[in-house]
Amino acid sequence: MSDVSDWWSTDIIDMAPGQIRLRGHPIEELIGAVSFPQMIWLMTRGGVPSEAEATLFEAALVAAVDHGPQAPSIAAARMAVTCGLSLNGAMASAVNMLDDVHGGAGEQAVELYHRIGSADAPLAEILEEWRAEHGQFIPGFGHRFHKPVDPRAPRLLGLVDAAAEDGTVSGRFAAIARGIEGALAGEKGKPVPVNIDGATAVIFAELGFPAPLARGLFCLSRSVGILSHAYEQQQQGGRNKGPTPPGYRWTYTGPNPIDD
Amino acid sequence: MSDVSDWWSTDIIDMAPGQIRLRGHPIEELIGAVSFPQMIWLMTRGGVPSEAEATLFEAALVAAVDHGPQAPSIAAARMAVTCGLSLNGAMASAVNMLDDVHGGAGEQAVELYHRIGSADAPLAEILEEWRAEHGQFIPGFGHRFHKPVDPRAPRLLGLVDAAAEDGTVSGRFAAIARGIEGALAGEKGKPVPVNIDGATAVIFAELGFPAPLARGLFCLSRSVGILSHAYEQQQQGGRNKGPTPPGYRWTYTGPNPIDD
Amino acid sequence: MSDVSDWWSTDIIDMAPGQIRLRGHPIEELIGAVSFPQMIWLMTRGGVPSEAEATLFEAALVAAVDHGPQAPSIAAARMAVTCGLSLNGAMASAVNMLDDVHGGAGEQAVELYHRIGSADAPLAEILEEWRAEHGQFIPGFGHRFHKPVDPRAPRLLGLVDAAAEDGTVSGRFAAIARGIEGALAGEKGKPVPVNIDGATAVIFAELGFPAPLARGLFCLSRSVGILSHAYEQQQQGGRNKGPTPPGYRWTYTGPNPIDD
Amino acid sequence: MSDVSDWWSTDIIDMAPGQIRLRGHPIEELIGAVSFPQMIWLMTRGGVPSEAEATLFEAALVAAVDHGPQAPSIAAARMAVTCGLSLNGAMASAVNMLDDVHGGAGEQAVELYHRIGSADAPLAEILEEWRAEHGQFIPGFGHRFHKPVDPRAPRLLGLVDAAAEDGTVSGRFAAIARGIEGALAGEKGKPVPVNIDGATAVIFAELGFPAPLARGLFCLSRSVGILSHAYEQQQQGGRNKGPTPPGYRWTYTGPNPIDD
Repeated sequence: MSDVSDWWSTDIIDMAPGQIRLRGHPIEELIGAVSFPQMIWLMTRGGVPSEAEATLFEAALVAAVDHGPQAPSIAAARMAVTCGLSLNGAMASAVNMLDDVHGGAGEQAVELYHRIGSADAPLAEILEEWRAEHGQFIPGFGHRFHKPVDPRAPRLLGLVDAAAEDGTVSGRFAAIARGIEGALAGEKGKPVPVNIDGATAVIFAELGFPAPLARGLFCLSRSVGILSHAYEQQQQGGRNKGPTPPGYRWTYTGPNPIDD
Repeated sequence: MSDVSDWWSTDIIDMAPGQIRLRGHPIEELIGAVSFPQMIWLMTRGGVPSEAEATLFEAALVAAVDHGPQAPSIAAARMAVTCGLSLNGAMASAVNMLDDVHGGAGEQAVELYHRIGSADAPLAEILEEWRAEHGQFIPGFGHRFHKPVDPRAPRLLGLVDAAAEDGTVSGRFAAIARGIEGALAGEKGKPVPVNIDGATAVIFAELGFPAPLARGLFCLSRSVGILSHAYEQQQQGGRNKGPTPPGYRWTYTGPNPIDD
Repeated sequence: MSDVSDWWSTDIIDMAPGQIRLRGHPIEELIGAVSFPQMIWLMTRGGVPSEAEATLFEAALVAAVDHGPQAPSIAAARMAVTCGLSLNGAMASAVNMLDDVHGGAGEQAVELYHRIGSADAPLAEILEEWRAEHGQFIPGFGHRFHKPVDPRAPRLLGLVDAAAEDGTVSGRFAAIARGIEGALAGEKGKPVPVNIDGATAVIFAELGFPAPLARGLFCLSRSVGILSHAYEQQQQGGRNKGPTPPGYRWTYTGPNPIDD
Repeated sequence: MSDVSDWWSTDIIDMAPGQIRLRGHPIEELIGAVSFPQMIWLMTRGGVPSEAEATLFEAALVAAVDHGPQAPSIAAARMAVTCGLSLNGAMASAVNMLDDVHGGAGEQAVELYHRIGSADAPLAEILEEWRAEHGQFIPGFGHRFHKPVDPRAPRLLGLVDAAAEDGTVSGRFAAIARGIEGALAGEKGKPVPVNIDGATAVIFAELGFPAPLARGLFCLSRSVGILSHAYEQQQQGGRNKGPTPPGYRWTYTGPNPIDD
């Protein structure tokens, strides 16, 4: 479709009646031939990964699908269904929530790893620089709930180690993440282990994904949990089931409170 | 987590500090062990599919990822990025568009197949009944752009046939879809072939997915294309790039038009 | 702009460089001359209401702006901000929630009033017919929280009465709503008074707004509260403040629960 | 409601059964007593403005309601309806688009005015500093379509002048905006007049609104046009009406284009 308008231009898809090509591949040659993770890779960045690369990539997609109904995205999905939204509307409401605080942590972690990987300065100096720019929180490390450790992270890092051993990836970003763990433990006097964002960021960085895709791929992965909870809520029925557990009331701090 | 509140209740996820179980499976036993399509299956409906089932399921997920920038969802994603939205916001804006017209066709097709499969009445009668309820359009058949045929559909049906031959699925919903094709061709005097919605609906029905998940799984699949286009647009830069190609103006039909 | 394309056509706006007309009125003649409620009326349905009509309309817009942080729309807005969304993203996430359960009640109430107003059948029969189609719940009546009465409803109905007295409106839809109140009280043996949706629906019906706009106008009105809460939350700061009050955990009902 | 939980806390609303207070005012004392713009003011920042203040505020709300179907927000709303979304879903999809590029310009303009108003440095220096931080584009000035001038801006500035004369506002932010106009005209050798974002920013700044509310108030105002177009599209019917005008095709720039 090499014509007419510079309105949108794309490297991704070309179509004519009866024909669809994705990154140059006829769709009918992809269906049944590439796995879904390979297709995600092909679409988002081009090229078809080897099976070993796709398997490591897949592990990151599998790991982040859900973190329970108190995660804002999942809560939003379930609320949306009780407000009458269809599954697409519930998924949209939920994915919108995966902004800087949730979706952004993985993106920032990839950026931080790259900065460390390309710098000559000592790690402590780079962390200090990062904090001057972004605040105290180092993205991808520590967890307010999973103490002592997020069970997903060591499993993912173990897969990266295995992939480094067989030459699928270099292992340098796993080393960088472990370096940060060490530095933070030294600072705090207790473990601040890599979390799910930090571990998936290692995988995305090892496989050469640019940082912004870490956010997008997290959204894709979490969409699985979002859909699952939205559908489960739809099956349960229930209208109007707000975010409010029984007996809950918020605190009013303004003028002229109601006496009760 | 068997306590406290009936606010939300779920069969999907259980958590404690350091522990996450999805449908009863510790997450660290799933990561690296199940494929992403198997995880999607486990999350949305429970159970882990066989590899043969997962492969057929995967084909449906691969097939629907993109249909070009003129598809409203993809267009919305690209517009959103040029308005300054982050990738999660662009994905949300786009998935919201996958309502009854787009996301709903697959869901309706599964419903129609089930109705036909469980009815004693002749096909023509059931189609008539469907049209009385839903209008003339039979969901999952025909395509305004892909003439004579959507290249994705025969490939998907071929995979269903192969899966029926090796006993992975029964093949009865493929037969139902072909029956509808025959009936519509007879009615119109020209082919009205099964399209992407109709073909993925055959797969979802063969594999036992309930109809509403056809919509949700389409949203998941299309999210891949949405993310890819949003990210490509983000790389291209460009602000404010509305939906308007050069020279385009809308038609004003109200009172007191501007003379020009 | 009377040319070119039938892509979009609109009675609402016409533009040329240096010129903007809304429903035929140059924008510079509207600014400073019509009130915001008059502009809302002009834009959504055409025509500029009298001041008396605009005042009654305005009362409905003022009444529904907020119903506290446990209302799903307000909760979604505040959650969104703690997830890092900008105000527009928070507002979008929140307005999406105003679907059939919240936004739809006013729309349905207008439809019900019109059905009653144009029917020859006795009220009890029409309510029965409505319930056969829509379920037991009569939209616009009763409140799970505001017992005995929603303080907004009698005030709004009082304004309708005053407007009927001075000839601004007919008062027939207020009479219809009171008829429904009477019928429901008779059925239940206790008051089931008109609520905010039912009372604003009376105003919209009296003023000649079509039913779907009742939903849209509610979204506009509630957007004020949504914005206010989103902005307040933004000022408070706080990251990640999910929907989960302290100590809250959901109920897991699936296989293999975590022992704790 | 002075109890229980620090989950959400708010100065905005307090409720008990049968009672609703907004910023301390019983809702039934506000309905019919304050105008919709006064209510927006009370909700977003507290306090009830004088009628003169409310009138100036209202002019800004009236001015920005619509900018035609090629504006991304309006286009998204109309697309959403043709995809089957309800009015709330269409409004949400559209408001989500009002991010940094559209909604953010007004917010940035207020920030810039405040910076200029509180600085000792000469204007040229502050503009240079702004551009070093934000890029060449000065928010609130110039228009790619409305040459020579956006008809809304001079009308709004005229109302500010009148309000300054009668003492409602100081007029200092109007003077700042005109100073910027002068500086930009000097730079470019042609007029770069204040646009709708810059003019409404003057009003919001004169009235003491903080910068982020400029974005939120623009979203409220534009929601009126969004609703109007969504409802008009719903009345027109039409399914699947993508963003694509007849004959439109995008440009494919990737490998292996389809020969045609």
